Amino acid sequence: MPDNDSAEALYTQLKTQSPNEYIIYDHQTQLGLTSSAVLQTLTLPKTAQVMTDAPTALRASRQWHPEDTVIQTAHSQIGGENFTLIAGPDSVESQTHIDAMAQAVKATGATILRGGSFKPRTNPYSFQGYGESGLKEHRQAADQFGLDMMTEIMDTRDFDLIDHYTDIFQVGARNMQNFSLLKQLGQQVKPVGLKRGMSATIDDLLNAAEYILAAGNPNVFLIERGIRTFDNKYTRNTFDVAAVPVLQQLTHLPVLVDPSHAAGKRSLVQPLALAGVAAGAQGLMIEIHDQPGKALVDGAQALTPNELKDIMQKAKAIKTIVKETHADD
Amino acid sequence: MPDNDSAEALYTQLKTQSPNEYIIYDHQTQLGLTSSAVLQTLTLPKTAQVMTDAPTALRASRQWHPEDTVIQTAHSQIGGENFTLIAGPDSVESQTHIDAMAQAVKATGATILRGGSFKPRTNPYSFQGYGESGLKEHRQAADQFGLDMMTEIMDTRDFDLIDHYTDIFQVGARNMQNFSLLKQLGQQVKPVGLKRGMSATIDDLLNAAEYILAAGNPNVFLIERGIRTFDNKYTRNTFDVAAVPVLQQLTHLPVLVDPSHAAGKRSLVQPLALAGVAAGAQGLMIEIHDQPGKALVDGAQALTPNELKDIMQKAKAIKTIVKETHADD
Amino acid sequence: MPDNDSAEALYTQLKTQSPNEYIIYDHQTQLGLTSSAVLQTLTLPKTAQVMTDAPTALRASRQWHPEDTVIQTAHSQIGGENFTLIAGPDSVESQTHIDAMAQAVKATGATILRGGSFKPRTNPYSFQGYGESGLKEHRQAADQFGLDMMTEIMDTRDFDLIDHYTDIFQVGARNMQNFSLLKQLGQQVKPVGLKRGMSATIDDLLNAAEYILAAGNPNVFLIERGIRTFDNKYTRNTFDVAAVPVLQQLTHLPVLVDPSHAAGKRSLVQPLALAGVAAGAQGLMIEIHDQPGKALVDGAQALTPNELKDIMQKAKAIKTIVKETHADD
Amino acid sequence: MPDNDSAEALYTQLKTQSPNEYIIYDHQTQLGLTSSAVLQTLTLPKTAQVMTDAPTALRASRQWHPEDTVIQTAHSQIGGENFTLIAGPDSVESQTHIDAMAQAVKATGATILRGGSFKPRTNPYSFQGYGESGLKEHRQAADQFGLDMMTEIMDTRDFDLIDHYTDIFQVGARNMQNFSLLKQLGQQVKPVGLKRGMSATIDDLLNAAEYILAAGNPNVFLIERGIRTFDNKYTRNTFDVAAVPVLQQLTHLPVLVDPSHAAGKRSLVQPLALAGVAAGAQGLMIEIHDQPGKALVDGAQALTPNELKDIMQKAKAIKTIVKETHADD
Repeated sequence: MPDNDSAEALYTQLKTQSPNEYIIYDHQTQLGLTSSAVLQTLTLPKTAQVMTDAPTALRASRQWHPEDTVIQTAHSQIGGENFTLIAGPDSVESQTHIDAMAQAVKATGATILRGGSFKPRTNPYSFQGYGESGLKEHRQAADQFGLDMMTEIMDTRDFDLIDHYTDIFQVGARNMQNFSLLKQLGQQVKPVGLKRGMSATIDDLLNAAEYILAAGNPNVFLIERGIRTFDNKYTRNTFDVAAVPVLQQLTHLPVLVDPSHAAGKRSLVQPLALAGVAAGAQGLMIEIHDQPGKALVDGAQALTPNELKDIMQKAKAIKTIVKETHADD
Repeated sequence: MPDNDSAEALYTQLKTQSPNEYIIYDHQTQLGLTSSAVLQTLTLPKTAQVMTDAPTALRASRQWHPEDTVIQTAHSQIGGENFTLIAGPDSVESQTHIDAMAQAVKATGATILRGGSFKPRTNPYSFQGYGESGLKEHRQAADQFGLDMMTEIMDTRDFDLIDHYTDIFQVGARNMQNFSLLKQLGQQVKPVGLKRGMSATIDDLLNAAEYILAAGNPNVFLIERGIRTFDNKYTRNTFDVAAVPVLQQLTHLPVLVDPSHAAGKRSLVQPLALAGVAAGAQGLMIEIHDQPGKALVDGAQALTPNELKDIMQKAKAIKTIVKETHADD
Repeated sequence: MPDNDSAEALYTQLKTQSPNEYIIYDHQTQLGLTSSAVLQTLTLPKTAQVMTDAPTALRASRQWHPEDTVIQTAHSQIGGENFTLIAGPDSVESQTHIDAMAQAVKATGATILRGGSFKPRTNPYSFQGYGESGLKEHRQAADQFGLDMMTEIMDTRDFDLIDHYTDIFQVGARNMQNFSLLKQLGQQVKPVGLKRGMSATIDDLLNAAEYILAAGNPNVFLIERGIRTFDNKYTRNTFDVAAVPVLQQLTHLPVLVDPSHAAGKRSLVQPLALAGVAAGAQGLMIEIHDQPGKALVDGAQALTPNELKDIMQKAKAIKTIVKETHADD
Repeated sequence: MPDNDSAEALYTQLKTQSPNEYIIYDHQTQLGLTSSAVLQTLTLPKTAQVMTDAPTALRASRQWHPEDTVIQTAHSQIGGENFTLIAGPDSVESQTHIDAMAQAVKATGATILRGGSFKPRTNPYSFQGYGESGLKEHRQAADQFGLDMMTEIMDTRDFDLIDHYTDIFQVGARNMQNFSLLKQLGQQVKPVGLKRGMSATIDDLLNAAEYILAAGNPNVFLIERGIRTFDNKYTRNTFDVAAVPVLQQLTHLPVLVDPSHAAGKRSLVQPLALAGVAAGAQGLMIEIHDQPGKALVDGAQALTPNELKDIMQKAKAIKTIVKETHADD
């Protein structure tokens, strides 16, 4: 049994020695660690506990890692001064369809092909994705058109299967605090795109990222996709565009935005995408479909490939303006 | 006493005659009116009641008035293809100060000088504004530099006093549903800048505007300034940038954004301002101060005049990009 | 012009002398005041400003005024160990009707007759109340049945008129931060029932009460009536029952609940009313109507007089249980 | 590829035959099913999709299953007219400690011993639970004192391990939409206590329950534990007490409340617990600790065993009053 009195004594002692450090206490060994010691080691005793109000996230924090993280994949660079476009259908529907989508995605300058084969659906009777056959078709389409493949993982049990196919893992809003899944994704090094939970604070999102980083994987990027508020009559979620500069001040991890899920409505995707870029987003994740009215899932928010091209052009132009600005300061 | 049974009978009869109309029922006279009849008259019996789920706002709706409203003042055009910059200090502090601020505002290309002399403050012991002396100084500064004056009204009793000085009335977030005030401002024709309440839905905002329009004043513009959500650690409010395109689809009234109050923090004002413009906002309302650290109110979110110039430049460039886009569609 | 540097110096000096006090600074006179000095005087210079994070509300705080406030009217005691029932129709509809409602209200043991003659309605075309004729009928019904009259005020201009008739003023959720109205109600001593705004924090509500107290009127009671959250499909608002014990810890002012507006639905009024009482509420405010389907406003949430009797009985029984509990601690 | 045109034709045909049914369409087989057919079979094709706005939850709905679900375990009955008390420490800390807690829990009349060995913690450096050793100690304590064991599962991979020990599974707020976990728990019949997610609507919660029911396990009970709103200064979450009657109208599943996590503060647990009971909750889940100041997790909200006894007494008394009420109607 840990003894809180001695923990407190230990805390006081360590704090005196290292006043600017956060103190982590291990209940089992009854040893104390400073935050810099924690940063040097990747394995933490499971009985450890932060003794004070630590800054949200240690490894994810700019305080400990001022320079931008840039994630390198076969076809993409995510973070820093790069602008990354992730696009594709909500769900992988068939080989023919995902191939067509991949070709369209490639043509816009995007480098990552998204598509779901395991779908988190609010209602159990909704289409849940094609599973492994979808993954195979997705992989083949990505390879054929020289794109990175990105797909959602919902369960630790699916890790080996999905890992066999994908280049980049996506963690959806509903699993942002599935800590077992986060730990698992931290024990490998493929990039993880972590979506903000529907009611996750900025600190919650950083802590979720920290779960992955703390387990050893530094390749995490964050995706703002709208939060749940009192008003959802005209939009699916409230797109929290301020999260972009706020996160960029707090963390070195890349910050992208997903205007499709925030809007839930085709006519709003472009304004929200451009707003995200104007606020400094390092990339966009956008759903497309050649026949939005026939999409298996979320057709109402899917753009056509032509609309995506239009956004990509303007996004780049806006990015240039915003950058110049920052250079002037 | 109104009799709901006969009201329903009347409703059914009117609905049969004019199936696409909304039916308004007058409890006192026991007469029914169709929505098009309501639109033709400016005075409604106070005992009237909309009998069905009417579209939010009749006069404010694009359905009834497809073309953009453009408000013309001595120095500004608000709405349509115009881009309007409103800037100034949170509070009028002295003649010297408001003069200096007016000069700086003018230099950025802004045409409207904001400044509060009656301040709504959460805490009764906070500075509440200088009242009439502030109005006088504000008027003089606006005149000297060829700007429109815009200031907040909080109370119907202050109407004559403020009306004596100002060109444009501002209704703050806390008074968005002060219906007596809205009715009063509807009985004159000076423009009213109506800020969205902290927990106002899009429909609430449109209904608040409708109060002013219904009373006879068509010169209303809307200002998104952030809503209250579960996360306010790093921002004062959640800037609902999607409100811009959503409102522009629903109403013909001009839609501006106030990034200063949404952010509550200087370093976030520029990203939010540019996000608003990229989403289509027809103007910006921004707080400035020459010495933000010494501002009487809200110094933490005030920009310097130089920072405002920077924003104005980029805002115009982004507006051009966004417009081109729309032309391509 | 106030000078923040000297203000800070003054602050430091006062703080050193009275370390447990909050410091209020007057910008005009450049004088500093301690919080205990403020509590001794009822008039504050309008240019005063609290210099630090003061506790929300000074006069409203239990810290400065540990004993419960008990408000005495002709027919009611509000606060302390008393349990107060306020009931009546949403709107005054006619003399006959308000008389019948008053009789029913009286029969349940309620002592305050509510009823609106000036109604804040989201939509300008909704019934706005009968104005003065409603006030007259309301007054007569209250007098005939030995009840206190309570009615809503929305505008400072209506003060003299409403004051001529009513015993208790109600400030509605939408006017909770209509600071001009609060100040006006602070300059007289009739009790004020202050409803929590839809997105008002606990601190906002206490600060709103403080506006009235600071102006000189100690007779304020607070009413929780539901807040706006992401889920309003099955209820109109989210009834924040925890606000009752939270407020009772922070303030000496009486805390009542209005389950009718929180629920927006008849079948939920009883469970919410009893929940409020179990959480410690010092009273209930409930809408009734003899023919809910024919009510001019909010019929969907109105109870019949019989349902109210049932609630009153159980509320008293629950109150006894809860009290015993506290005695046992 | 599914063809939406033929799906729509099929839908229209089925709807004409069975106008009161919801139609589920299988994309793979291109067959349509009526909702009553779905209710008769436990296996749904994974490519099925509800074609219209179905009522939230089919099997969970009172519409399809009017009588209350009562779950029977070795020591408890959950649901119907029963009142169930679940109590225990937040985390299993040691054999000695959990034994002492079990004894205290038993003495209050509670029948279910809660305790976490796998803890979902926002911050990765917080104590994450003792894992299997905790489960063993928990099991032994439950057996020794004749209590059911209830513990949280966070990951499908932990299922066999936890299933080996526990009587009742708990799904925490953060995993309410971990659909893989819900499906797994639906493939066995031990009871599942499903906590409402922090931003889950009533419909989301019912849909999450439906995942378990649809997979074959009818033994689900729901736990309201507070939602995330704009105000969390004085409480950890906003306890949505109206969820109790709302859920009881919509579903036959038992509805309990967890005032400990809603409050996050010891002094608020009793008022919220009693409020929940007054609103009709069929049970309580409460955290206790003999030395709250030394609890490994969430000590600030833990009650002492004596405080729990006090609540249990009053809860039963209030339940009697509330029931009598309902009988009178």
